[in-house]
Amino acid sequence: MKIDMTYGSGGKQTGDLINQVFLKHFSNPVLNRLEDAAVLSISGKIAYTTDSFVVTPLFFRGGNIGKLAVCGTVNDLSMMGAVPKYLTAGFIIEEGAELKDVETIAETMALAAKEAGVSIVAGDTKVVEGSGGIYINTSGIGEIKKEGITISGCKPGDVIILSGNLGDHHAAILSERMGIENEIASDCAPLCTIVANLFEADIDVRCMRDVTRGGLATVLNEAADQSGCSVELLEEAIPVSREVKGFCDILGLDPLYMANEGKMIAVVPEGQAEEALKAVKKSPYGTNARIIGTILEGKGVRMKTKFMGSRTIDVLYGEGLPRIC
Amino acid sequence: MKIDMTYGSGGKQTGDLINQVFLKHFSNPVLNRLEDAAVLSISGKIAYTTDSFVVTPLFFRGGNIGKLAVCGTVNDLSMMGAVPKYLTAGFIIEEGAELKDVETIAETMALAAKEAGVSIVAGDTKVVEGSGGIYINTSGIGEIKKEGITISGCKPGDVIILSGNLGDHHAAILSERMGIENEIASDCAPLCTIVANLFEADIDVRCMRDVTRGGLATVLNEAADQSGCSVELLEEAIPVSREVKGFCDILGLDPLYMANEGKMIAVVPEGQAEEALKAVKKSPYGTNARIIGTILEGKGVRMKTKFMGSRTIDVLYGEGLPRIC
Repeated sequence: MKIDMTYGSGGKQTGDLINQVFLKHFSNPVLNRLEDAAVLSISGKIAYTTDSFVVTPLFFRGGNIGKLAVCGTVNDLSMMGAVPKYLTAGFIIEEGAELKDVETIAETMALAAKEAGVSIVAGDTKVVEGSGGIYINTSGIGEIKKEGITISGCKPGDVIILSGNLGDHHAAILSERMGIENEIASDCAPLCTIVANLFEADIDVRCMRDVTRGGLATVLNEAADQSGCSVELLEEAIPVSREVKGFCDILGLDPLYMANEGKMIAVVPEGQAEEALKAVKKSPYGTNARIIGTILEGKGVRMKTKFMGSRTIDVLYGEGLPRIC
Repeated sequence: MKIDMTYGSGGKQTGDLINQVFLKHFSNPVLNRLEDAAVLSISGKIAYTTDSFVVTPLFFRGGNIGKLAVCGTVNDLSMMGAVPKYLTAGFIIEEGAELKDVETIAETMALAAKEAGVSIVAGDTKVVEGSGGIYINTSGIGEIKKEGITISGCKPGDVIILSGNLGDHHAAILSERMGIENEIASDCAPLCTIVANLFEADIDVRCMRDVTRGGLATVLNEAADQSGCSVELLEEAIPVSREVKGFCDILGLDPLYMANEGKMIAVVPEGQAEEALKAVKKSPYGTNARIIGTILEGKGVRMKTKFMGSRTIDVLYGEGLPRIC
């Protein structure tokens, strides 16, 4: 059955969609009240964020837009040293979307939320003209466990840990779009357990960021810029799977600029680097973590290449991924 | 200048859009940090909600999509007895949208946020293929001032106050779409001052709802349904401006089902009705408030017509507005 404009009218059909799809999967005591807003008890410092998800195709190897929407916001909260607690979900559905796709997406969101330990406490659905697309906005609230973790917190001497292989998500989406058959799956995952492990090991984390749009290059440039430091990367240390490497070689893509949905960097004091690495590796989403570089005095991001050369790693300009040349 | 896909890449152009448009207008100490999430101090009970805005045209007499996006979420929080504090804003922009329109919308949002006393503390921008449309999601957090105000809180004997004329927003949007020239303007407004006035007057408000999608008929059916009561409306008491009435008569529309963006109902104990009405009227957005009906035992919503008949007011079915027949 296809969704038509009546599902967005705020009347009977909207109610059916809410009851038969969203409440069915997201059910919890707060949401079930169906008031204008959720009522929650919270105290202390919170992290609060929002993100919209517009990926096409909606379904891909390793996940779908719903899993992204939950993990993306969970990860943004986690990167601020917060334990993710509550999410909202706003759906913008183009007419012609399949009701069963919406239900599959909701089901996946519920599973991802469960894994991350968050409740979806408020939602909204709009139906617009179009051709079957779906956009999802999630906002989230987390309770801050450790204050002062910030993109401007890097200090010369600190060590950069990357939680695993680069490029999987981007390559999986491109493969779907281009109809290329391979085994590459999105890395989409909640990063809250990695953060919990770092805290449990008492690491004085300076800065954490999930490596999403713009890739590692953009994240590191931001960190260098905001912290008033420079970054030195070791090309050899940066993990990329054999399959993604092959994919990138053929298409002329650079994994440093590719989006990930289950990868993060943690910048930690030099003396705690090995212990921090161990903590990250304890999570199923951090098994291939590596120390990939260090923070230095100066400006910008440079990478020591395999051939002992050095090149500047700039932020992403324009839309596409730069060709390796 | 038109927005193209590069503005959504997460790289340089996205940064420019954030700095030169959003930060310029929304600037506040929390947002300006540009972390993955805002860090806020909060304690006690909060209200938390989300809403997406997809109105076309983007600009209309009385407001634009940005004003709606701020007021809509401010109002949802207010209806739960909360003082709105923080908003997030997620923009989904179709390529081809004019940069100056995005800036005008951001400017309007900043003004509306200022009036409502909220800060926009986190944001997100995505650019998608399309033809110049803009969607905005806002989520919001408010501090609950008075607990227990709920759509299920109506009791037989209670009185229903409507804060002003019905149908202005819906008629303004339809007029724009149909190219009909008239003076009808959207009623889009923040309702937090009305709520503050009710609390200041110590009214034991049972239930509040803003009268948006689905119109008064849908809101009252929800209240009756959730409270296990019935509603009796007085047709004569329901305020509709002469211009909107004329517009509806010509097009065969029923104001009871039309969307508003600056109107609310408050259900209050009978003995406090006059005092509550006075409190609502004290706000510039409540000057034409009326007592429009009462809560009774039983089920459903009925309206006493001008001719002393009585008819059932059902929820909205399907998309369109039902013809009066």
